[in-house]
Amino acid sequence: MEELIEKADILIEALPYIREFSGKTVVIKYGGNAMVNQELIKSVLKDITLLKYVGVNPVIVHGGGPAINQTLDKLGIGSEFHQGLRITTKEIMEVVEQVLIGRVNSQIVSLANLVGNKAVGLSGKDNNLIQAKKYKVDDVDLGYVGEVEQINPEVLKAIINSNYLPIVAPVGVDLEGNSYNINADLVAGRLAGALQAEKLILLTNVEGIMTDPDNEDSLISRLTIEEATKMIESNRIKGGMIPKVEACIDALESNVNKTHILDGRVPHSLLLEIFTDRGIGTMLTNKSI
Amino acid sequence: MEELIEKADILIEALPYIREFSGKTVVIKYGGNAMVNQELIKSVLKDITLLKYVGVNPVIVHGGGPAINQTLDKLGIGSEFHQGLRITTKEIMEVVEQVLIGRVNSQIVSLANLVGNKAVGLSGKDNNLIQAKKYKVDDVDLGYVGEVEQINPEVLKAIINSNYLPIVAPVGVDLEGNSYNINADLVAGRLAGALQAEKLILLTNVEGIMTDPDNEDSLISRLTIEEATKMIESNRIKGGMIPKVEACIDALESNVNKTHILDGRVPHSLLLEIFTDRGIGTMLTNKSI
Amino acid sequence: MEELIEKADILIEALPYIREFSGKTVVIKYGGNAMVNQELIKSVLKDITLLKYVGVNPVIVHGGGPAINQTLDKLGIGSEFHQGLRITTKEIMEVVEQVLIGRVNSQIVSLANLVGNKAVGLSGKDNNLIQAKKYKVDDVDLGYVGEVEQINPEVLKAIINSNYLPIVAPVGVDLEGNSYNINADLVAGRLAGALQAEKLILLTNVEGIMTDPDNEDSLISRLTIEEATKMIESNRIKGGMIPKVEACIDALESNVNKTHILDGRVPHSLLLEIFTDRGIGTMLTNKSI
Amino acid sequence: MEELIEKADILIEALPYIREFSGKTVVIKYGGNAMVNQELIKSVLKDITLLKYVGVNPVIVHGGGPAINQTLDKLGIGSEFHQGLRITTKEIMEVVEQVLIGRVNSQIVSLANLVGNKAVGLSGKDNNLIQAKKYKVDDVDLGYVGEVEQINPEVLKAIINSNYLPIVAPVGVDLEGNSYNINADLVAGRLAGALQAEKLILLTNVEGIMTDPDNEDSLISRLTIEEATKMIESNRIKGGMIPKVEACIDALESNVNKTHILDGRVPHSLLLEIFTDRGIGTMLTNKSI
Amino acid sequence: MEELIEKADILIEALPYIREFSGKTVVIKYGGNAMVNQELIKSVLKDITLLKYVGVNPVIVHGGGPAINQTLDKLGIGSEFHQGLRITTKEIMEVVEQVLIGRVNSQIVSLANLVGNKAVGLSGKDNNLIQAKKYKVDDVDLGYVGEVEQINPEVLKAIINSNYLPIVAPVGVDLEGNSYNINADLVAGRLAGALQAEKLILLTNVEGIMTDPDNEDSLISRLTIEEATKMIESNRIKGGMIPKVEACIDALESNVNKTHILDGRVPHSLLLEIFTDRGIGTMLTNKSI
Amino acid sequence: MEELIEKADILIEALPYIREFSGKTVVIKYGGNAMVNQELIKSVLKDITLLKYVGVNPVIVHGGGPAINQTLDKLGIGSEFHQGLRITTKEIMEVVEQVLIGRVNSQIVSLANLVGNKAVGLSGKDNNLIQAKKYKVDDVDLGYVGEVEQINPEVLKAIINSNYLPIVAPVGVDLEGNSYNINADLVAGRLAGALQAEKLILLTNVEGIMTDPDNEDSLISRLTIEEATKMIESNRIKGGMIPKVEACIDALESNVNKTHILDGRVPHSLLLEIFTDRGIGTMLTNKSI
Repeated sequence: MEELIEKADILIEALPYIREFSGKTVVIKYGGNAMVNQELIKSVLKDITLLKYVGVNPVIVHGGGPAINQTLDKLGIGSEFHQGLRITTKEIMEVVEQVLIGRVNSQIVSLANLVGNKAVGLSGKDNNLIQAKKYKVDDVDLGYVGEVEQINPEVLKAIINSNYLPIVAPVGVDLEGNSYNINADLVAGRLAGALQAEKLILLTNVEGIMTDPDNEDSLISRLTIEEATKMIESNRIKGGMIPKVEACIDALESNVNKTHILDGRVPHSLLLEIFTDRGIGTMLTNKSI
Repeated sequence: MEELIEKADILIEALPYIREFSGKTVVIKYGGNAMVNQELIKSVLKDITLLKYVGVNPVIVHGGGPAINQTLDKLGIGSEFHQGLRITTKEIMEVVEQVLIGRVNSQIVSLANLVGNKAVGLSGKDNNLIQAKKYKVDDVDLGYVGEVEQINPEVLKAIINSNYLPIVAPVGVDLEGNSYNINADLVAGRLAGALQAEKLILLTNVEGIMTDPDNEDSLISRLTIEEATKMIESNRIKGGMIPKVEACIDALESNVNKTHILDGRVPHSLLLEIFTDRGIGTMLTNKSI
Repeated sequence: MEELIEKADILIEALPYIREFSGKTVVIKYGGNAMVNQELIKSVLKDITLLKYVGVNPVIVHGGGPAINQTLDKLGIGSEFHQGLRITTKEIMEVVEQVLIGRVNSQIVSLANLVGNKAVGLSGKDNNLIQAKKYKVDDVDLGYVGEVEQINPEVLKAIINSNYLPIVAPVGVDLEGNSYNINADLVAGRLAGALQAEKLILLTNVEGIMTDPDNEDSLISRLTIEEATKMIESNRIKGGMIPKVEACIDALESNVNKTHILDGRVPHSLLLEIFTDRGIGTMLTNKSI
Repeated sequence: MEELIEKADILIEALPYIREFSGKTVVIKYGGNAMVNQELIKSVLKDITLLKYVGVNPVIVHGGGPAINQTLDKLGIGSEFHQGLRITTKEIMEVVEQVLIGRVNSQIVSLANLVGNKAVGLSGKDNNLIQAKKYKVDDVDLGYVGEVEQINPEVLKAIINSNYLPIVAPVGVDLEGNSYNINADLVAGRLAGALQAEKLILLTNVEGIMTDPDNEDSLISRLTIEEATKMIESNRIKGGMIPKVEACIDALESNVNKTHILDGRVPHSLLLEIFTDRGIGTMLTNKSI
Repeated sequence: MEELIEKADILIEALPYIREFSGKTVVIKYGGNAMVNQELIKSVLKDITLLKYVGVNPVIVHGGGPAINQTLDKLGIGSEFHQGLRITTKEIMEVVEQVLIGRVNSQIVSLANLVGNKAVGLSGKDNNLIQAKKYKVDDVDLGYVGEVEQINPEVLKAIINSNYLPIVAPVGVDLEGNSYNINADLVAGRLAGALQAEKLILLTNVEGIMTDPDNEDSLISRLTIEEATKMIESNRIKGGMIPKVEACIDALESNVNKTHILDGRVPHSLLLEIFTDRGIGTMLTNKSI
Repeated sequence: MEELIEKADILIEALPYIREFSGKTVVIKYGGNAMVNQELIKSVLKDITLLKYVGVNPVIVHGGGPAINQTLDKLGIGSEFHQGLRITTKEIMEVVEQVLIGRVNSQIVSLANLVGNKAVGLSGKDNNLIQAKKYKVDDVDLGYVGEVEQINPEVLKAIINSNYLPIVAPVGVDLEGNSYNINADLVAGRLAGALQAEKLILLTNVEGIMTDPDNEDSLISRLTIEEATKMIESNRIKGGMIPKVEACIDALESNVNKTHILDGRVPHSLLLEIFTDRGIGTMLTNKSI
């Protein structure tokens, strides 16, 4: 009995946060690297289900790098890279699309429904949700690597207003009907802006932005856009963390209130971020407070 | 950190119950005897606020016996009783009304708003919510002691639909405009029926119905209407517990799903009842299961 | 028959006024001194009911000085005054609240329903309708005498939109949950502003503003803000008439169209003011016309 | 002042009737014979405007015999009659339609708007409101004399719901697009049934149904369907009064609550009928009370 | 079969145009001179019905000169003219109104319903849709010849939103209730502006604006406001074409997108204009493209 | 010009059919075999776009056999069959899901949007749209071959009501989250029933049901359920045509009005079926007419 009462106490502790986020939209990128195993995925989806039921409107954007690699391997299709980006031929893009939409998205929808949600899968092709164009680096033709040209959020809003949980695969489409593979972090950042979300949360497989990646204690809790930009320029933020930071900056500049990079492997990191004062991971803001 | 994660685990444990009660109405009688002190009252109101924010529609009915006695004493107004019921003269009824509506209801509204609710006080006089008639026992004139003749729930539904938390004082009114003091348990039972509530919960200052009131271990967890009726007939249920049982029976016969008599002094008894499997107090049902 | 036809003629005379006020909000202060007897109160409430049925949205604010005095006397609680304002201790405030909400408001609701309305009682505590702060005069602590800090009119609008007649007790509440006694005229003025009412009507027990209070013929029919301010400064308006004038000025400055001080004891003064060209009482306007 | 107060008293007397009819539909036939002069017509339309503003939904159906005769005369078109019904050739029907829709209806719309209404003219041709078929008497071909086959009330309901006052010309149309002249009383009766009106009121130029038409004192105040049918059979009701009685019976059999035949020349007869207890004219009901 | 497939091909060709006009309002003036015979009128109304069903909101304004002349003749009423405008006495205006509303409008409504529409007839008198004033030329009193003072489009919007097809007779009304005969082209132009229509289409009995009226090949396909104004000044546009051009200019200046003068006698000229690239007739625009 | 007018004539011919189907739902199965090439697919999607714009609500269900075979081949995964059904291992089901959702559905969505639609892709996993169970034939375990257990059409209705074109992949899901491959014809039949569609149309690569498959002239235009059942029993309908007929019967038994099996390779077969009297293919009905 004692124990039960303590549990109820904890529910009550969440009350001020529930009030604060009631009716707000939160865009959550849940990346391939953070999807360590089915149990963890289910746990994250349960957290999201709870958010939905207490009145928050979560939108999930997922990645899928590992699953794409695995399928390309099975099919014996090799890849070339430029600046860390896969040169994406038509043949490869077909595989990318198949895997992102037909496997990763489809599985997340299934798991989300299993834990009690009303999930609906979307890709950027649905009513041209994610209008894309070729992403250019130097003058190399990267094929069907894209960037967001424009978000058409109507279909997403219709899904949210009908009280479903949207789960978005980061496949874009141009006006000729070509599909593009777009970095999921950047898609999440743009969607957050287009939806005027309250928060953008990027779940990844590190604790956040660190001054020394090998030292957990070097986690930076709070970073301004200005500081982050400098860290990228001085090469202290690099690799896959760069698009995450860019997504945050993008969202902040479109009036998203707060953006976060969290460790998706920590149980309930989403709930901890939203429902406690103990900020975890790194928060990027417009200004230092 | 560990501890925080455990806390989040507890939020997640509540998820299936949140889903189950989302959009349902729960009528809660919160009686004078269970209102031991302001801290406890606030705690109960926080529990109710949480219910509201996770999508439940709570309706509070309160009593106020102790406060009425106190004011009558101050005013030096004596009372006569018949069968345990105060013979309620016009003068006494004025005091009753003043205290129930102007003090007890008003204070609960204040406290509920303080802990973050959007509470609105109502009495049975608002749009004739509780239409009353004289309650007759034997042939003794009890004055303005009333019973519910009819519930006109429109104003209550309007308040609920506008997303406010209604708090109802158990003062009834007849078609000539006379006020009546009505047992709050019975009012709660009738309101639950009229609103087609999912649950009726009567918070009191005992653990529930016991075979031996002096022995906590004799608590009866589950009772059918039939069994309860027999216990009243055989005098094993008596005193203030009788109208509670009658309120439950009344509600069950109007298709309210479940009715409960709980100890309001146990911290979070409301949340424990709704959000855990550990039933507490006594549940009255139509049939044994 | 002749007579009946004449009566119908009179209904038709009201038509242009009915058209003019259809769908408009009119805030009516109905004060303790004007509430001479039940018959008169019922008559005023019938007038208001008629307004409601012909499409006007009346909002009633009431006072309650006499009833408060009476109860304080009964309880043997004495009062000290400063500049004509009662120094309101916690104990006195409890009585004030009880009487205003539990007795005066409650009775007006009852009577309004009796004459055919769908009345709902509110106080400033309902969803913090009247957010208050301590009213300071000189440096004397007047206790729980308050002034309006902010009106949160949502709950009032919800009640009006659901087609109920709201009746408001002038009890305010601060963010710590303390109750305050606020001058009902000033509350009415602020509510009229917050609701963007068409008219503010203060029913009192004199004919209006007079140059010589002892001479009925000295009634001033029309007064600008500027003129009224000067009359206060030169002590020609004084006592209880000052807050009435201030309420009018307050409302006019918040774009309320017209404000009136009428004799509530004259039968149908409300109807006469709204439905005839014969202005009665004193009208305060922004400018002379 | 005294006088003004008396006038307000009269407004208040109407209150219970206003409440009773609020939101109800009343179909009013206003016939050519009762339209004695423009002043009278305006007076009747003002009465109807008042009804509209106090929440009643009036629907006007008009006739137009005199105006038709006048135009046929001007055009030098003669008519033959069978059993009192004009044999209506194509040429005559064109005139009828022109006059009823283009003159009588159009003028009533104008006058109704002049006295402050939001009137919209309709004929049975608008969205096939009045679907007609040839009216057969014996085996004589009466040409385009029609009877109601079916009412399609959607367009009328749309007009009412948009808060306009509909004024209906009794021209019907068949599925081949032919126009028919239909008795306006019978149209009113059928419309009242199709709209589930509360009342059908036929304004005419006699006091009501009389046992002796030459003796005003012989007015019958109340008549059952059964009694009326017998009076027709025994030739005590005859001529133009027969379709009026039939319209009432028709409406009563379609659950219209009450039907009345009133003298439209008596000032405010409509208001007197609706807003006083003094029934005027003849009321036809299902049963004697 | 081959032939059927070709037919379906043609349906598909219309698709881009259907998409473009979906949900847009198009005001169509269908004049007396273009109403050559019933078959042609039916054909035009079928075209309009098709527009309605594929999601366009057409509004029809009609004229009626020939029918008016014919009736005046029958009645033996002569007319005087000033600058080509009939001096319209009260007597003549009555005939005009009767014919336009009671005959022409009424017949078009009938025919429109016959070919499957849900048509509702309106005149400028319905809720004062077309508020008019005397039209002054020089200082001659033209009687009841009017011009549009103000359009009150609410009733028209209500009819459109209820999904009916409105058909408007060009009779205006002033605030004293006098009717006016107004040029139908000018009414159409003003209605198009008030409704913020996408297009104004004037159907007439010539091919469009020609440099040489006797030479069909001299049709001008596209004309700017400026060019048209000059052509009027230099007398190259004259007679009945002047008000058409003025209507177009009026509409263009109120942000109507495109305006057209088409030959209503060409089968399906409406459909050809809207559903093909082959512009027909003359298009007036704000600027040359 | 002549030619254009003829074209417009054809638009007008479609009008009665447009009226008939306005607002009705039509479920269209568009199978892998009928998807001969991109041009044909685009043509069919244009037809569907036209249907959408003229007010019909089409729902597309697609198959994908050939694409699945192709991918299984590329991956070197062999299959065993039982009674013509592929024994679907977990590995194979993953490929099926990937291809149906991530490739076929995704491509159709893209093409539909390219030709001007607002298409949204769905699978049976979205909000458990298609709840499935194992399909049992004899006692052989066919793995993840499923049949429809229940349709949960809410998400589909939300998509339709938001005016999007839904395109459904026939992947079902059970309550444990397992995916199943279900025959697309049968899915279409069940969806048509659940949506209370007006029509079910199965587009395939034969002309319809023939008495002699090698003889085009042996096409059966109309077949009752009873007759079709007999033809299956007597082996005159066999192979892939059997589930088509079963889908039709299923839909007819759920009150779908008409069901059709058409040759999707014939240009505009959809439009011909809906917009002309010339029925093509085979229509299955409840009864012979």
